[in-house]
Amino acid sequence: MDYLSLLSERTKRISVSAIREILKAASRPGMISLAGGIPAPESFPIEIIGKLSDKVIQTYGPSAFQYDLTEGFPPLRKVLCTHLSSKDIFVTPDEILITSGSQGALDAIGKILISPGDVVAVEAPTYLGAIQAFNPYEPHYINLETDDDGLIPSSLEKALSSHRVKFIYLVPTFQNPTGRTISLERRREIASIIIRHNVLLVEDDPYGDLRYRGKAIPSIKTMAPDHIIYLSTLSKVFAPGLRIGFCLAPEMIQKWLVIAKQGVDLHTSTFNQALAAEYIAGNYLEKTVPKIIRIYQPRLDKMLDALDRYFPKEFYWSRPDGGMFIWAEGPEGMDMQSIYQESLRQNVTFVPGRYFYTAKGQGMATMRLNFTMAGEAAIDDSIKTIAAILKKRIQGKAA
Amino acid sequence: MDYLSLLSERTKRISVSAIREILKAASRPGMISLAGGIPAPESFPIEIIGKLSDKVIQTYGPSAFQYDLTEGFPPLRKVLCTHLSSKDIFVTPDEILITSGSQGALDAIGKILISPGDVVAVEAPTYLGAIQAFNPYEPHYINLETDDDGLIPSSLEKALSSHRVKFIYLVPTFQNPTGRTISLERRREIASIIIRHNVLLVEDDPYGDLRYRGKAIPSIKTMAPDHIIYLSTLSKVFAPGLRIGFCLAPEMIQKWLVIAKQGVDLHTSTFNQALAAEYIAGNYLEKTVPKIIRIYQPRLDKMLDALDRYFPKEFYWSRPDGGMFIWAEGPEGMDMQSIYQESLRQNVTFVPGRYFYTAKGQGMATMRLNFTMAGEAAIDDSIKTIAAILKKRIQGKAA
Repeated sequence: MDYLSLLSERTKRISVSAIREILKAASRPGMISLAGGIPAPESFPIEIIGKLSDKVIQTYGPSAFQYDLTEGFPPLRKVLCTHLSSKDIFVTPDEILITSGSQGALDAIGKILISPGDVVAVEAPTYLGAIQAFNPYEPHYINLETDDDGLIPSSLEKALSSHRVKFIYLVPTFQNPTGRTISLERRREIASIIIRHNVLLVEDDPYGDLRYRGKAIPSIKTMAPDHIIYLSTLSKVFAPGLRIGFCLAPEMIQKWLVIAKQGVDLHTSTFNQALAAEYIAGNYLEKTVPKIIRIYQPRLDKMLDALDRYFPKEFYWSRPDGGMFIWAEGPEGMDMQSIYQESLRQNVTFVPGRYFYTAKGQGMATMRLNFTMAGEAAIDDSIKTIAAILKKRIQGKAA
Repeated sequence: MDYLSLLSERTKRISVSAIREILKAASRPGMISLAGGIPAPESFPIEIIGKLSDKVIQTYGPSAFQYDLTEGFPPLRKVLCTHLSSKDIFVTPDEILITSGSQGALDAIGKILISPGDVVAVEAPTYLGAIQAFNPYEPHYINLETDDDGLIPSSLEKALSSHRVKFIYLVPTFQNPTGRTISLERRREIASIIIRHNVLLVEDDPYGDLRYRGKAIPSIKTMAPDHIIYLSTLSKVFAPGLRIGFCLAPEMIQKWLVIAKQGVDLHTSTFNQALAAEYIAGNYLEKTVPKIIRIYQPRLDKMLDALDRYFPKEFYWSRPDGGMFIWAEGPEGMDMQSIYQESLRQNVTFVPGRYFYTAKGQGMATMRLNFTMAGEAAIDDSIKTIAAILKKRIQGKAA
């Protein structure tokens, strides 16, 4: 059969992600990986999960294994309200939709909102998973400018004045890939701009709880609730393999997200939602997050220290207060793809930054460095290795 | 905000399913439900799941809770090969894609194959979940005729001769909603037709293991492997709340299904896949299925017996050898929606058959009766209740 002729028009927009190959290479034995966006396995509360499994079976019995509401398992939606109120987000259980990871929310958002050619405004660079979720629905992207304080509000204002934007997609806190956080002042400006332009914003907040210093900054959701779909996940504060995300959208949007989700997976795993409900209700979430931070904070510090010591002076890098990533930019003309190839030969991987841009040719001199998977000694070694390759390349150019 | 104006073109094809309301009504206390397609909670191997949770934590440790391959958890894919070989389907682990329920496979199939306006051929009536998965991708449906032996091959031949069909969707064994099974002779004819017309067929097989009498009939996949995407689920033989489905597609199609799934949910719950792997590897699946059959078979027999005794002679109904449903058709002009309303007032629910048709106005005199959720006495009572309403209506018409 000529299978290729069977593919839909939209499939042509779904490219085979080169990053899949990078992450496969990262899992090879002996490799030090600064590539993935993957929590440290030692951060998983394995023993707690064992206890919670017994508790769930005792408490909920067969209903933890039965088909359930598309909207989500009611006990989980209930405890998430309490959890969210600690972030100044006040909602009722009915306003929460549980999704299969935040990826599930991104897919449903793309599906119900994007007609082919619709304009979606994204930070440049932006989260790759969002692009992968939206692409099959055939949007046109416009890029918003960013600096060390995150999205530049005037860039948003300009985009909204010159384009009919369907929605804006942002990761305001410890962004993937840059680790940057939008400042409080800018969040207020952004809220005011989206209200004035009457436009929808998708605020993706997977890393907010992983803050290693400084004070938490309120979500933009708290400033413009009717204009924002807020999404988050338990992947970084419980376990990613359980695939539990959640989202809060204005009622009319939420209704359609539920209907779209029903066609995609009926509902998210009842058992895993019950585990998550007991994890939060039993105060395990609030006890576990500080433990996770105690693992990650020294790794971030070690990586910043190593960058200071080893990286060429021609480089800039972000100095995040939390999350999982540091972003580094080299001098123009540097091809980070070829640096990556050389680094791979020396058993160190990272992700070339160009994969986080929606347009070709952007971000060629950039890289994303993850600091949660490798131990401190390995982080020091691997940054030293990459730095040596970079210096050699810069010297080669200068010669 | 005018949220309605934000919805995509495709969202207009995603209708709010009336069946959602029916299933909500079915869960009201005191209701006897013949409505859902839901396994009996007493069929769930709860104690086994408790043991398996401990086993999974011991055997796989943190990797059962980590991000995993989009293709699926390797140990599950491995044991599924053995399971499938007992059905004369011989594949390697690499050929298996684990999906979030079979719904996840249906969504990915729709996404990668259907361009707006593409023709999808379905049995009339057909599985509602497939329609819900495909609709957002804007197909045009054509209906295939069926009788007590399932799909009529000449109807398929005719459809393929007169339309350019993107794919055919069938539930050949104990179909939802009719309970009918396509005979061996017809399967061979269908295989020969799709090979001759060089067309793709999606064979959905969620109920095959729930056979209460007669001999298993090989899947069409065994007869035309290169032309078939075969999908199945553990929802009916393990637990639906774990959301574990799987599919086998020709290599080129499989590759795109994986990429589509990555954008939708990254991967299916690792923990639940590990539970499923241990469930099959520990021979619990083969021990549990006979137990499930011992619960369902007397319920099917009781319902057939009650239909024989109480239902008006003007009615036809299917006599399935397995699965979860009986299909009943009344005389033309009978409005099953209004029968449903009256039945609901008497605390008995079923699903009016018209929801299983892709075109409006079809199947008005039909109904789907589920026999797995209610006990035998309740089945007898509820069929008696519905029969009394039907008889009254028929007499009223005759008078």
